[in-house]
Amino acid sequence: MDVRISMIGLGRMGSALARGFLRCGAQVTVWNRDAAKAEALRGEGATVARSLAEALKASDLIAVSVLDTAASHALLFSPASAPLLRGKAVLDFTTSTPAVARAAMQHATDAGAQYLDGALMCYPSGVGTPNATILFSGAKTVFDRYEPQLKALGNAMFLGEKAGAAATLDLALLDFYYGATAAMLHGVAMCQSEGFPLEIYAKALGGFAPIVAQTAELAATMVPARNYTGSEATNDIHAAALALIVQAAKDAKLDPFPEQIMGYFKSALAKGHGPDEIVALVETMRP
Amino acid sequence: MDVRISMIGLGRMGSALARGFLRCGAQVTVWNRDAAKAEALRGEGATVARSLAEALKASDLIAVSVLDTAASHALLFSPASAPLLRGKAVLDFTTSTPAVARAAMQHATDAGAQYLDGALMCYPSGVGTPNATILFSGAKTVFDRYEPQLKALGNAMFLGEKAGAAATLDLALLDFYYGATAAMLHGVAMCQSEGFPLEIYAKALGGFAPIVAQTAELAATMVPARNYTGSEATNDIHAAALALIVQAAKDAKLDPFPEQIMGYFKSALAKGHGPDEIVALVETMRP
Repeated sequence: MDVRISMIGLGRMGSALARGFLRCGAQVTVWNRDAAKAEALRGEGATVARSLAEALKASDLIAVSVLDTAASHALLFSPASAPLLRGKAVLDFTTSTPAVARAAMQHATDAGAQYLDGALMCYPSGVGTPNATILFSGAKTVFDRYEPQLKALGNAMFLGEKAGAAATLDLALLDFYYGATAAMLHGVAMCQSEGFPLEIYAKALGGFAPIVAQTAELAATMVPARNYTGSEATNDIHAAALALIVQAAKDAKLDPFPEQIMGYFKSALAKGHGPDEIVALVETMRP
Repeated sequence: MDVRISMIGLGRMGSALARGFLRCGAQVTVWNRDAAKAEALRGEGATVARSLAEALKASDLIAVSVLDTAASHALLFSPASAPLLRGKAVLDFTTSTPAVARAAMQHATDAGAQYLDGALMCYPSGVGTPNATILFSGAKTVFDRYEPQLKALGNAMFLGEKAGAAATLDLALLDFYYGATAAMLHGVAMCQSEGFPLEIYAKALGGFAPIVAQTAELAATMVPARNYTGSEATNDIHAAALALIVQAAKDAKLDPFPEQIMGYFKSALAKGHGPDEIVALVETMRP
């Protein structure tokens, strides 16, 4: 089967995606606002479109990777572009929120196109390796039709037909990552303030960190049931330990990050979750 | 060799520690303010002291595990107890801050005793299993003399002669744990707000979480050098992704935890760390 894919946006990530599609034998047309970036790909077998309209006309699958979704929507769904999408499939790899992914699917539907959202859980250098996890959600028929090409980019996971699903998991994992990394770095600052060797902290953290993923598994069963009764440790005990961390951070004149976390425990204790597992903190985070 | 250990405090953890010492053949004397808890251990081979003074006189190693260090210091270093410590070794398992551990060592020294601080990175049920990591710091001669008994409690690690070292690593790891768990639960709340299956989030997190420990290893080399130049992703890129999370959390009316984390990025960017690795956030956390 003749697979034709247009790649719109040739930054580091867009170029890596174009190369991934080329490697698995697809006919790839590329376009970038700054044409210079397209020339490198011409030598690797891509067709360089002279205009956005030409790129949109050239293929059945229109893949996009640009700075933000304001840019991708302006390119795809403008009065000039939208009529060219009829009968085609749009695959937007640009990082988005669930709400923006839903809006994109609506725009695509209005233009008579199908929509698939892609979320890349990797750096550009990871594209095409098994270390790249790529989340997809939206039109399953599009995922199925291009599955060999999408699997050539990495570990492709289809998360369902809700347009926002890929963005949800992407952002929820990054939500964890940024908070956890800030907490880890606060621990680094605490070690530094006591002259404690950071390599010992890093090594111990490697052994200790899996407990957070275990707590996530516990959350997957406890949270839907809203039953936080367990046998590991109570929030009363956790709050007492955290109070020591708050004190140690004060002693060392560090940022009051632990106090912010203590806020969740105080709310949870006020709601009667003192004897419950730590998972109950989720009750203080949502409406 | 005749090893005699007194265990002061017989809550769930103190009782588990007493049992661990009994299992490796030590002569264990136990004392608890509420004597009833001691009786269970009598049947397992412990000697029950009729008073705190009797317990302090009975052994060369005085191990303590009580609710907090205010309680342990009041028991050990009172005018009645302190004279009984001369020539002995004190091992306090009660969770403390580095500053309080330093004070305890001073009190012990004043009483003519040696001091070892113990930090238990496990639940009572883990004592005596290889899953229990127990950190020690302070008098190395005490750790060396009782090493077989301490190793019977779990994976015993001696972290150096600074009294506060064990408390530092203990609190720094818990500092990470509480922040990371809050971040993980915020991700749970985000998934819930979109009706995204929590078991898929938990599974994906298990694969994604090790990246935080990898970043800790990066921190161990970057932070002492205060050089955050790298090739993974810049703080500019991270801040753009986090801005989407802030927006998604607002859309879902969730707690503004991601905004608090954004505060670190804003400070780091203001200090010129935009092109640097995420490890540079540590510069915004300490004096």
